[in-house]
Amino acid sequence: MIHPVILCGGSGTRLWPLSRKDYPKQFARIFGEESLFQASVRRASGDCFAQPVILSHSDFRFLAAEQLSALGIEKATIILEPEARNTAPAILSAALYLDSEGCGEDVMLVAPSDHVIRDVQAYHQALDAGADAARKGRLVTFGVKPARAETGYGYLELDDAPDSFGAHAVPVTHFVEKPDASRAAEMFASGRYMWNAGIFMFRVRDIIAAFETCSASMVGPCREAVDNARPDLGFIRLDEAAYARTPEDSIDYAVMETADNVSTVPVDCGWSDLGAWDAVWHEMMPDAHGVAKSGAVTQLDCHNTLLRSEENGPHLVGVGLENTAVVAMGDAVLVADMSDLQKVKVAVQRLKDQGVPQAETFPRCYRPWGWYQTLALGERFQVKQIMVPPGRQLSLQSHVHRAEHWVVVAGSANVTIGEEVQLVCENQSVYIPIGTVHRLENPGKVDLHLIEVQTGSYLGEDDIVRYEDIYNRA
Amino acid sequence: MIHPVILCGGSGTRLWPLSRKDYPKQFARIFGEESLFQASVRRASGDCFAQPVILSHSDFRFLAAEQLSALGIEKATIILEPEARNTAPAILSAALYLDSEGCGEDVMLVAPSDHVIRDVQAYHQALDAGADAARKGRLVTFGVKPARAETGYGYLELDDAPDSFGAHAVPVTHFVEKPDASRAAEMFASGRYMWNAGIFMFRVRDIIAAFETCSASMVGPCREAVDNARPDLGFIRLDEAAYARTPEDSIDYAVMETADNVSTVPVDCGWSDLGAWDAVWHEMMPDAHGVAKSGAVTQLDCHNTLLRSEENGPHLVGVGLENTAVVAMGDAVLVADMSDLQKVKVAVQRLKDQGVPQAETFPRCYRPWGWYQTLALGERFQVKQIMVPPGRQLSLQSHVHRAEHWVVVAGSANVTIGEEVQLVCENQSVYIPIGTVHRLENPGKVDLHLIEVQTGSYLGEDDIVRYEDIYNRA
Repeated sequence: MIHPVILCGGSGTRLWPLSRKDYPKQFARIFGEESLFQASVRRASGDCFAQPVILSHSDFRFLAAEQLSALGIEKATIILEPEARNTAPAILSAALYLDSEGCGEDVMLVAPSDHVIRDVQAYHQALDAGADAARKGRLVTFGVKPARAETGYGYLELDDAPDSFGAHAVPVTHFVEKPDASRAAEMFASGRYMWNAGIFMFRVRDIIAAFETCSASMVGPCREAVDNARPDLGFIRLDEAAYARTPEDSIDYAVMETADNVSTVPVDCGWSDLGAWDAVWHEMMPDAHGVAKSGAVTQLDCHNTLLRSEENGPHLVGVGLENTAVVAMGDAVLVADMSDLQKVKVAVQRLKDQGVPQAETFPRCYRPWGWYQTLALGERFQVKQIMVPPGRQLSLQSHVHRAEHWVVVAGSANVTIGEEVQLVCENQSVYIPIGTVHRLENPGKVDLHLIEVQTGSYLGEDDIVRYEDIYNRA
Repeated sequence: MIHPVILCGGSGTRLWPLSRKDYPKQFARIFGEESLFQASVRRASGDCFAQPVILSHSDFRFLAAEQLSALGIEKATIILEPEARNTAPAILSAALYLDSEGCGEDVMLVAPSDHVIRDVQAYHQALDAGADAARKGRLVTFGVKPARAETGYGYLELDDAPDSFGAHAVPVTHFVEKPDASRAAEMFASGRYMWNAGIFMFRVRDIIAAFETCSASMVGPCREAVDNARPDLGFIRLDEAAYARTPEDSIDYAVMETADNVSTVPVDCGWSDLGAWDAVWHEMMPDAHGVAKSGAVTQLDCHNTLLRSEENGPHLVGVGLENTAVVAMGDAVLVADMSDLQKVKVAVQRLKDQGVPQAETFPRCYRPWGWYQTLALGERFQVKQIMVPPGRQLSLQSHVHRAEHWVVVAGSANVTIGEEVQLVCENQSVYIPIGTVHRLENPGKVDLHLIEVQTGSYLGEDDIVRYEDIYNRA
């Protein structure tokens, strides 16, 4: 049995506006209905895999749990990092956790959750080869056959150009940092350099031993963080103080580049890290004119262009565009030259500096009890759509500055107002006066949708007093 | 006294998505708070002008009246064309109307409502010169000094390049159709050709006489359309059957090109017909990099680019763009190469063919009683924001398929439900069951805003039975 360890604490901005700080890339629906995170988990499930271990950030815990549940995966371990400290402490913590569960002799697979792999069969074949090598005590990396002279990735240098892909592990000579353009061209031409995909396999005890040898200072704090971890509604929270003392480092620097038992499995599996919108454009299989589109899009005479209107987005019309990427949402639109997509990060930072909420906040806000989305915001009123899945409930709460009207438009709600509890059905409404303690719950079998109309002089999310909360937020 | 006649029945699509069939360019806010229509009316108001005569289409009557009222103009004649039949019947009808009001000896000024004039002083000076010539029996056109070798306009050919602009009328040799590029370059170089701006001045009786001479067949039906016009809530509706018999023609073809008493006043007044988004870009005074922006926009390294986010639109981010026009609204986004803007019309036709509502329907829907805007549309529910100015009321109505919840978020409403009338104030709500006769009215002194939540199996606008309507729509 292989233990998949999926890393999903990251929060990049280069796929803005679809990826935002509070709803990052790995959870977004970039290709169809399945998120990259869900695809990563699905790729590491099946007969030869144990239940997944998910490493994530506290902010994304309900999102991760929700997406696992949508995938039909009810058994998973979700370990919450108190803060992001790069890959080394995360992977070591996962290894120590698995060891504490008695799985020290087993092989673990570490995979990022925000990459795409088109040829899953080739990937699984390479994992078989990796597992063989790991069982022999090797620390296995996976080296992706380069598709071009890319300057954005690190490389793995091999002794010889591989004679096959996915078949067996070979020794790694060097880890190579991101090269400049001319060096990248040389490396690409030689055939001896593979992209470092950030995917690893090793026995649990082997990687712990490697940390003890190569990065001994990391082991103590990480072990303490795991030993003192506390369960929280099914999640495992690493100890905050101990985790804060772990050195911030990548697994490459901390272990792989210095360990003497590293191997790589060369693999050719249609891998992409989706580092920017041009990579997404490429994965969307552009037509003969180079046009890739998704959602409500109409185009005329465009070439080498990405046109996306995301879920519930505006109707996007492109006319005569060349080498342009357009991503349209109801609250934010990106239009960029394909060759300038690395600057999206800079643009998002600028938005953040200007205090534009769209820089970091996704329009649909996910909560442990479901989600809400603002439909209209006026000077003294706000309209929200609220969705609560069956069995969930919001906290028992009150507001100092706003009254709320709730109209149920689908499903049924159990509504507590003051001392009274009532069942509110489709096409019924209730009123919650300022200051009144209230709670919303879905007692039914179908999703509850309601429209909330708030009125008051202050309508911020922070006007909330929580009295009780089944999600421990009170 | 000069009688301004403002033509505002047009409905172009080249400024889509801001200009749509049901909310065309002349009423849109392209530059600041004032619409092009309002600016046109304001330019023709003051001591030497009589109250304006507005020629418009029935669909836009309340929009035109609303925008006049916002301008503080309470006295205006709004003549409604039953259908658009080009400029000749519209102008002749206005002349016949003015004649019937005893103004036959007066001078009328005919001006489009969807153009921009930057130098109003130069324009007024030219109008003075035009009025002098008109009083001597001339049919006066205004010839705009060309700024470039434009192929998109018709031209007026003069005997000589004018020695001054706006000072006096000179004879016109020929009307010249839109030229090809090389002919346009020659004409531009010669200095003898002026752009035909579609602005005219003549005595009322002189233009009627000119029609009798040059387009006699138009006079009978137009006179009948005016004589049989009927008043409707302050508007004047031309007789439909008679107007349908008028030949569809432009004033240029019908009269100006054949009449022997035509003069032109050469004028240099910063005129633009805003024929496409590049013209808007030009009028917005781009910065040193050629970037013009308005609304919620952030840009990085763009050149010669128009970036607009319209009122309540998404936050628009442009990165590394060249020669690109972007116009973003919540429900529709246009991204086009600057040199392909004439194709926007084709793209909008394609949207229409695809049945995309955004092709023709503006998100905010103006009605005689105010406006509404859809905030969310679900499978069995719809959320709308509704605004009713003081003193207005909706029709007494009922719906077969939907119930409605109204939450007042600003102002006060008089709500009739069945036999009962109640005052509903801010932060109060009412429920209108399916099939119940109801009416909404603003009895107050400030705008009424309410949120309407509809639930039901069919939510189309046509599920309405009107019993009484002060706007004669029952």
